[in-house]
Amino acid sequence: MEISELGEFGLIDRLTKELPIKHESTKLSIGDDAAILRPEKGCDVLVTTDLLLENVHFDLTYVPLKHLGYKAAVVNFSDIYAMNGQPKQITVSLGISKRFTVEHIEELYSGIRLACDVYGVDIVGGDTCSSHQGLVISITCIGEAGEGKAVKRSGAKDTDLICVSGDLGAAYMGLQLLEREKIASRGNRDFQPDFGGKEYIIERQLKPEARKDIIADLDKAGIVPTSMMDVSDGLSSELLHICKSSGTGCRVYEDRIPIDYQTALMAEELNMNLVTAALNGGEDYELLFTVPLTDHEKIERMAGVKVIGYITKADLGCALVTRDGSEISLKAQGWNPLAAEKKGE
Amino acid sequence: MEISELGEFGLIDRLTKELPIKHESTKLSIGDDAAILRPEKGCDVLVTTDLLLENVHFDLTYVPLKHLGYKAAVVNFSDIYAMNGQPKQITVSLGISKRFTVEHIEELYSGIRLACDVYGVDIVGGDTCSSHQGLVISITCIGEAGEGKAVKRSGAKDTDLICVSGDLGAAYMGLQLLEREKIASRGNRDFQPDFGGKEYIIERQLKPEARKDIIADLDKAGIVPTSMMDVSDGLSSELLHICKSSGTGCRVYEDRIPIDYQTALMAEELNMNLVTAALNGGEDYELLFTVPLTDHEKIERMAGVKVIGYITKADLGCALVTRDGSEISLKAQGWNPLAAEKKGE
Repeated sequence: MEISELGEFGLIDRLTKELPIKHESTKLSIGDDAAILRPEKGCDVLVTTDLLLENVHFDLTYVPLKHLGYKAAVVNFSDIYAMNGQPKQITVSLGISKRFTVEHIEELYSGIRLACDVYGVDIVGGDTCSSHQGLVISITCIGEAGEGKAVKRSGAKDTDLICVSGDLGAAYMGLQLLEREKIASRGNRDFQPDFGGKEYIIERQLKPEARKDIIADLDKAGIVPTSMMDVSDGLSSELLHICKSSGTGCRVYEDRIPIDYQTALMAEELNMNLVTAALNGGEDYELLFTVPLTDHEKIERMAGVKVIGYITKADLGCALVTRDGSEISLKAQGWNPLAAEKKGE
Repeated sequence: MEISELGEFGLIDRLTKELPIKHESTKLSIGDDAAILRPEKGCDVLVTTDLLLENVHFDLTYVPLKHLGYKAAVVNFSDIYAMNGQPKQITVSLGISKRFTVEHIEELYSGIRLACDVYGVDIVGGDTCSSHQGLVISITCIGEAGEGKAVKRSGAKDTDLICVSGDLGAAYMGLQLLEREKIASRGNRDFQPDFGGKEYIIERQLKPEARKDIIADLDKAGIVPTSMMDVSDGLSSELLHICKSSGTGCRVYEDRIPIDYQTALMAEELNMNLVTAALNGGEDYELLFTVPLTDHEKIERMAGVKVIGYITKADLGCALVTRDGSEISLKAQGWNPLAAEKKGE
């Protein structure tokens, strides 16, 4: 069905029908000039936003629309968890190019709705319009954290332990694989990509999850990180952010960086440097955080979290300690979206 | 200066330097995974968002970047006022095409900052990336209203008076004029558009204001509208929204619709129907609201507000009463952004 048959309001009605409200705090949802929220008493409100543009942030050649919607929502939730908060509401703005049908947009929206169901988030508003160019997705997420309980980037202290959840570099290697298969498929209509044994890195790229579980585990363990952020641009870049904001330096150990075996195999197959992928690949959406040295035992007992180094005084700088014990300055080689180059090209 | 010289973080630093925080409620601004807000006790939080795309919502041939920034912010504030709230914070996401320099983006941002200074709003976050297509601007505004004091679209009751602030149709006629001059200038490098005596309609199109003053006046007069929204798509469209949400009908009088003489002159010059422009033009950003009949005297004493009709039972439908006393059904002929046609073309 052509979108023009429905018009803006018809399309919004269709996309947002049967949208149950999950939170007491969502007092008024879609359909007015603004949504009305009543955050829980004693809570701070968190706000984060992401803008995703076709052919800059995603390539519809290999990204299914439902996955794209899911990921677009989850990356925002990840930012809220990275503040030690809980995502509660999102607004979804779409700029839709003429080549999309109503069914395409329903597919995209079904991914957003799925993510909201999985993470318990209400869709409370947005804006929908036509785009003369590619697809535009702008999502803003509203979250809550106990008053004064939000964790910033700026609280890391000398001797704090640096921790990271999950593993790194997989989403980046997944992207490399997708790009390789895209090139291989050119001019070949019957091309079937072979992702056997590489499902994990593909999933990390196409359908990442936000670490709600880690935030819950930290809370259960009675650990309050001194600083935290999510790994979206790459570990190096994020470590430099934390150290700059906190006025510290850091040391991370190459042999402590968690890497999945599929990531390692793919790097070998593509003849790429594995540590570079893990340090600079980005889009991992894992949590990077620091805890006081006194929390060492508690952290060691937590599943899915690894201590990868420690915070130092600022004058020691930020460095990676390699397997042979030498130190290499950390540089932010993460993706610079203003360099206008697609990752992996 | 090329934007790639600065990179994303360099550009953000430059755009947001010396950004004073105006509100106690803004606990943490730009520079972390999310902003931290602490709304005033006893206040609800309002959220609205707008997505603006080049050549869909604006034409840089005649829209100066500073004005564009100003308008992009103000249209969001307008949505918050339309809920009987006060805008407090915005996030600003930009997709920047390669043809823009750092100075261009500074110009755009200076308009956004100016609007925030005029209306007392903090810029607390955003996302900046390159666009392979045109300029993309996505702004989300967070506002506050006293708990339960937000005014929705759905509260209009039979016999309520329908009121509108300012005048209507001017922004639309301003757009017609700008489009006419754009066409006239084609192939003529030395072309100087003649806007003499038409400054008001040009300003209404390029630099609209949100009616903060009317919200303050209503409060002073002790008037709480039963329903309210801002006129962005056109009076007809908005009236139908209010009546649909409230389960009512309405009658508005053609001869009561406030129209500025510049709007009328321009319509005559362009041989366009003036009432159509006022009913369906849109982008007026005036407030449309309903009040109980008992507030009639109070409303009559308010400057800049006009009673244009009244709410009826639903079965009477929504109609315009023309000067000769006949009734014409109201239709939403406002701009449908998904029809992918630019206004005025």
